[in-house]
Amino acid sequence: MQQKSINLARLSLNQATIDQWDARAAIEGCMRAGIPSIGLWRDKVARTGLAKTARMVHDTGIQVSSLCRGGWFPAATASERQTRIQDNFRAIEEAAELQTKVLVLVCGPAPDRDIHAARAMVEEALTQLLPVAHQYDISLGIEPLHPMYAADRSVITSLAEANQLVEKFNDSHLGVVIDTFHVWWDVAVYEQIARARNHILGFHISDWLVPLPDVLLGRGMMGDGVIELRKLRQAVDATGYSGPIEVEIFNQAIWDMPGDDVLELLKRRYLEHV
Amino acid sequence: MQQKSINLARLSLNQATIDQWDARAAIEGCMRAGIPSIGLWRDKVARTGLAKTARMVHDTGIQVSSLCRGGWFPAATASERQTRIQDNFRAIEEAAELQTKVLVLVCGPAPDRDIHAARAMVEEALTQLLPVAHQYDISLGIEPLHPMYAADRSVITSLAEANQLVEKFNDSHLGVVIDTFHVWWDVAVYEQIARARNHILGFHISDWLVPLPDVLLGRGMMGDGVIELRKLRQAVDATGYSGPIEVEIFNQAIWDMPGDDVLELLKRRYLEHV
Repeated sequence: MQQKSINLARLSLNQATIDQWDARAAIEGCMRAGIPSIGLWRDKVARTGLAKTARMVHDTGIQVSSLCRGGWFPAATASERQTRIQDNFRAIEEAAELQTKVLVLVCGPAPDRDIHAARAMVEEALTQLLPVAHQYDISLGIEPLHPMYAADRSVITSLAEANQLVEKFNDSHLGVVIDTFHVWWDVAVYEQIARARNHILGFHISDWLVPLPDVLLGRGMMGDGVIELRKLRQAVDATGYSGPIEVEIFNQAIWDMPGDDVLELLKRRYLEHV
Repeated sequence: MQQKSINLARLSLNQATIDQWDARAAIEGCMRAGIPSIGLWRDKVARTGLAKTARMVHDTGIQVSSLCRGGWFPAATASERQTRIQDNFRAIEEAAELQTKVLVLVCGPAPDRDIHAARAMVEEALTQLLPVAHQYDISLGIEPLHPMYAADRSVITSLAEANQLVEKFNDSHLGVVIDTFHVWWDVAVYEQIARARNHILGFHISDWLVPLPDVLLGRGMMGDGVIELRKLRQAVDATGYSGPIEVEIFNQAIWDMPGDDVLELLKRRYLEHV
């Protein structure tokens, strides 16, 4: 496969990478670093204020590649599930106000041992959310998470499952978000990327360190681990996806670095490895 | 599904559960506790001595459900790969001497970023090992590991992959070992268990704790986590498998308990949850 290199035009900072920055600081940091897009998190937007963040987005012209995150659907009772869906309605509204097109869904864990039932709850929630997503013209991106999060973050554990859900709904406003950290190990990953053609809503990157330092905060900077990032990026591109590429790294050591230094490092690594 | 309960007749102690015991101590512990089978580990057998362990097995009549482990096939150079295969030849001989029928294969990580090439190395190694396996009448059990070990323990990350390998070889001495900890999250797990009909060589159990305490030493005692152990055991049984059920728990807190206490606890939990 041709090692076609890329420039920074598609680079996006997912702000989980720099935990100490609220939305304002992250947008300012991206402007300083010449990073054209940002993936925002709801809690960090709340710290800055939704209206103020939206105004900054408008004034700076920075692209909001996605809002993280909706989801977390399965719950023990119908009323709790409805509360979660209401929260997702608000997330869709926030996404619209922040002028992004994509709400990332981390679907949530089962409330008990029954992962099969929890998966059905995800489907039920999507049925309720999609009409609202259409109303606000926000697309919902199902992000399959690594199977090591199956018990505490997402019952959707592979790109195949996410693709199957998307195909079942066959809805213009439902797609997948592909994160290299979550899917790289899958023997079917290239086949499933090809299958996602026409419904890829986002592409997230980070690396898998060996040994893994921590289940949650052990993701690596691109180039520090074993993921074939360029090959995966090229496979995603080959489907026709030409949207933003978000760097999303949960890593305590990176959180401990000055944010501006992280941005310089990730730009360099992005050009070298993605 | 009928909640058919089981007795202790199929229970096996995989000796990784009690790390402080060498093979001799583990066999003696099983005799005291009335546990009829044991899964031995090569390093712990070596500490007791191979011939001495084999004699104890013969004298006590304890069943050796499996020997752990062969595998670890991918390596950067052809000569290093050949060295690993030689080591697997020895593992087969040891398995025969220990009067077990099954050598468990943990296939190993890639030596670099190319997980696809590493999977081909696994296949190549199996091609060389199977004639020797026949010669000693030892079956090779491919144990797919949880995807969180894809980078440092096994490039075979799902039961589907293991089944596909077994079907490709279509060899009477090649099958799969199913471990609940490694496969429980998989949306296709019941379908893949059914597909493994006629080539299930072992069934390992432990639980998935929430949150996961540690990537390597965080497995749980049955009943302490979220895995539907009984449902999975019944699915395995429904294929016709009636062999040993090995308790294999890597957990520092359990390693810190007196071994005899662990055995009493696991017998109780086995009857309650499996």
